[in-house]
Amino acid sequence: MNFFPAQANTLNDILRWRRDVRHFRTDLVADCAIDRLRAAMDLAPSVGNSRPWRVMQVKDQTLRDQVQDIFESCNREAATAYDEATRAEYVRLKLAGLRAAPVHLAVFTDTAPIEGRGLGRRTMPETLQFSTVMAIHTLWLAARAENIGLGWVSILAPAAIHALLGAPDSWIFTGYLCLGYAEFADDRPLLHRTGWQCDIPTQWTER
Amino acid sequence: MNFFPAQANTLNDILRWRRDVRHFRTDLVADCAIDRLRAAMDLAPSVGNSRPWRVMQVKDQTLRDQVQDIFESCNREAATAYDEATRAEYVRLKLAGLRAAPVHLAVFTDTAPIEGRGLGRRTMPETLQFSTVMAIHTLWLAARAENIGLGWVSILAPAAIHALLGAPDSWIFTGYLCLGYAEFADDRPLLHRTGWQCDIPTQWTER
Repeated sequence: MNFFPAQANTLNDILRWRRDVRHFRTDLVADCAIDRLRAAMDLAPSVGNSRPWRVMQVKDQTLRDQVQDIFESCNREAATAYDEATRAEYVRLKLAGLRAAPVHLAVFTDTAPIEGRGLGRRTMPETLQFSTVMAIHTLWLAARAENIGLGWVSILAPAAIHALLGAPDSWIFTGYLCLGYAEFADDRPLLHRTGWQCDIPTQWTER
Repeated sequence: MNFFPAQANTLNDILRWRRDVRHFRTDLVADCAIDRLRAAMDLAPSVGNSRPWRVMQVKDQTLRDQVQDIFESCNREAATAYDEATRAEYVRLKLAGLRAAPVHLAVFTDTAPIEGRGLGRRTMPETLQFSTVMAIHTLWLAARAENIGLGWVSILAPAAIHALLGAPDSWIFTGYLCLGYAEFADDRPLLHRTGWQCDIPTQWTER
């Protein structure tokens, strides 16, 4: 399989227009689209081919409300860590789209999967979570290519989410994802546009 | 920006033909291609737009030989953990392409970057390493779309790599990457083909 420059350009466009979406329309996402995104995750890299990601699609409204509560609590706590001027700036940011997003996915990592037979993770067990992160990123790009937005909510207490959703003991919480159609498209990160943190280029040195 | 099904299909092809490459030809990779891959990393998601990945391109042959030594030592140690039959299977696997790959990248994560101003990582500081992992995955896909293979070597002692390359104290080692032209293209993981670990579908449940 040999790719041509037009295909590399398409990937570049998808990368460029991928955003962490917090502004969702409430339109539903078709089940067949979700199925395609799930299938895309099967193509993600994983240490020892272990595929340790475990996805829970959270449909129950009571559970979703409780996730929102955990987010709000963590977000209030985060705001208190800043000085007054920065706090005012922080609280103006919209950092999650949990209420409007039609699809909620809680993503965990199995820290002791049989699959992979331990290969590649003896000295770096964190590569299991890294595999899940790449599966999430795969989902993210596949979603963007279907014009579906994704927002990764990390302002959450992992233990609280783990307990709320009744995850097995051997699982660790990796990330909570909102999916849906974005209110607008943008080729620059929102945190750059709002002035919170401008884009900086990759730091690259030689040895 | 609205993507069409043909573009989603292109992404799917790139995902499907991305492999963890351990069999490299020794042909050099042009500097301009490396520059494009570096620029692609600028498009990766990061917590709080912090972009904490720090790339060291390892060109010095003595350093490269020492990385190879660390790999061999960790790989021998890993083999001892298996029973005899599995060990025989393990040692037949080719798990790194360090000797032939023309480009070596050591990728670290700054655990205390000023950028991002702490946003999104108060309850989950591991999201900094997660950001680096997504930047690596971005590099991986961009490379594949340019017909350049990438292999992620995780069978390494992080502290030894950190010390060898003189990384700052606030950096943590995330992954060591080999890049170059692959000896062959394949749409299935090598560990599946060799029978070490067959592909399993993403586990997805509902709450």
